[in-house]
Amino acid sequence: MRIVMGIEYDGTAYNGWQKQNIGIGIQTVVENALSKVANHQVNTICAGRTDAGVHARNQIVHFDTVTERDDYNWLAGVNSNLPPDINITGVKNVSEEFHARFSALERTYCYEILNQKIRSALSRNRFWWIYESLDIDLMQSGAKHLIGKHDFTSFRAASCQAASPIREMFNIDFQEKGELVSITITANAFLQRMVRNIVGALVQIGKQEKDAEWMYDVLKGQDRKLAGVAAPAHGLTLLSVKYPNEFDISSI
Amino acid sequence: MRIVMGIEYDGTAYNGWQKQNIGIGIQTVVENALSKVANHQVNTICAGRTDAGVHARNQIVHFDTVTERDDYNWLAGVNSNLPPDINITGVKNVSEEFHARFSALERTYCYEILNQKIRSALSRNRFWWIYESLDIDLMQSGAKHLIGKHDFTSFRAASCQAASPIREMFNIDFQEKGELVSITITANAFLQRMVRNIVGALVQIGKQEKDAEWMYDVLKGQDRKLAGVAAPAHGLTLLSVKYPNEFDISSI
Repeated sequence: MRIVMGIEYDGTAYNGWQKQNIGIGIQTVVENALSKVANHQVNTICAGRTDAGVHARNQIVHFDTVTERDDYNWLAGVNSNLPPDINITGVKNVSEEFHARFSALERTYCYEILNQKIRSALSRNRFWWIYESLDIDLMQSGAKHLIGKHDFTSFRAASCQAASPIREMFNIDFQEKGELVSITITANAFLQRMVRNIVGALVQIGKQEKDAEWMYDVLKGQDRKLAGVAAPAHGLTLLSVKYPNEFDISSI
Repeated sequence: MRIVMGIEYDGTAYNGWQKQNIGIGIQTVVENALSKVANHQVNTICAGRTDAGVHARNQIVHFDTVTERDDYNWLAGVNSNLPPDINITGVKNVSEEFHARFSALERTYCYEILNQKIRSALSRNRFWWIYESLDIDLMQSGAKHLIGKHDFTSFRAASCQAASPIREMFNIDFQEKGELVSITITANAFLQRMVRNIVGALVQIGKQEKDAEWMYDVLKGQDRKLAGVAAPAHGLTLLSVKYPNEFDISSI
């Protein structure tokens, strides 16, 4: 049987999603909890392998098992074996056609910035604190150049192992609420560190170190050196993943 | 010279505001940082001594010093000597008539509840997770009995050292946003654990274990055993403190 799960986590304490040689990956903690409930070794596949320090509201994972349990027993059993900074948000039996990574149509990430003069203890693990004032209108203008199907080589980590640098960007949305700026980004898929590199470039535009048109040049230049420094990991959260309706997992 | 400061902190790692024999109080960490910048031992007085695990957006503190520094140098110097989960939000010279505790007219606390079936990793240190559904209208009806000047003995910790149990409750406001419930409570001052005991009682009404009129009986009974279990500390944040206009510290 194939099972799909939604997972929420605070990435602060972990070295990213993936199993690690150094530090602990969230995947290891989740697979240990699943294996206890399944009574056999469980291996998971996720929708998006988040970096160290990145959070998730609803990471999607699938695994195969021979153990029959109802959805609630999986949920309660696995959560009782997870630490407080990781939890399952939903569980569902799914067709074996489903693949958490390859079936995904869209991933949505949110990047959160705290734009005020003074740092914030309560927001330190969830927001990028930027004390210089940001012009959000300029950032929006810059972001428009990224919408559509492009070669995103300029926003790709050197260590990225994706076969192709082509991705389709569907939406980049800005929301301001007092000193908080949320940037919600949806694409079919992302290259390694792509959101953080895009946000790093957008912030240079917001600080008026670069103009909005520069984003076009960075994209077309197809050179990682052009975009500048990545935004820090702790401001980034994987919000949701969209799959074809036929799998009927929108409730996860 | 007397100086007043605003302080924000995440109380998760600390054993409350006050200096402690067991664990570390936030006061100790703040006074160590202040003493380094002042070049002499600094002792602080705060507006509200928060319990272990309670947070603050704007705790108010005063201290006396012989060292002359401008506001920005105090702010930057002290923040660079504080860990990331504590920071100064503002600094101002103030008249020696000012006293962070005795001059305060009002304290406002916020208690945050996450009311959903499944626990949340990202909210674990800031929200009380309650999975039973809450009737907020009933909680509001119950809260109305507490408005005004009353003997709050029923909501007072056994260890509370206040001379009088009389406090004046100005406002209890409820806000719902999706699964989040925020209860904002303003009084002239609070007894030890008073907000948490009030929220604990309100939640019993919200779960319909008690009716809204029961709150009146608890208040009038003047017996700590009536109100039931306190709400957990991690949902509580000291939001702000109000002082007479003559001290001109509203910008802190």
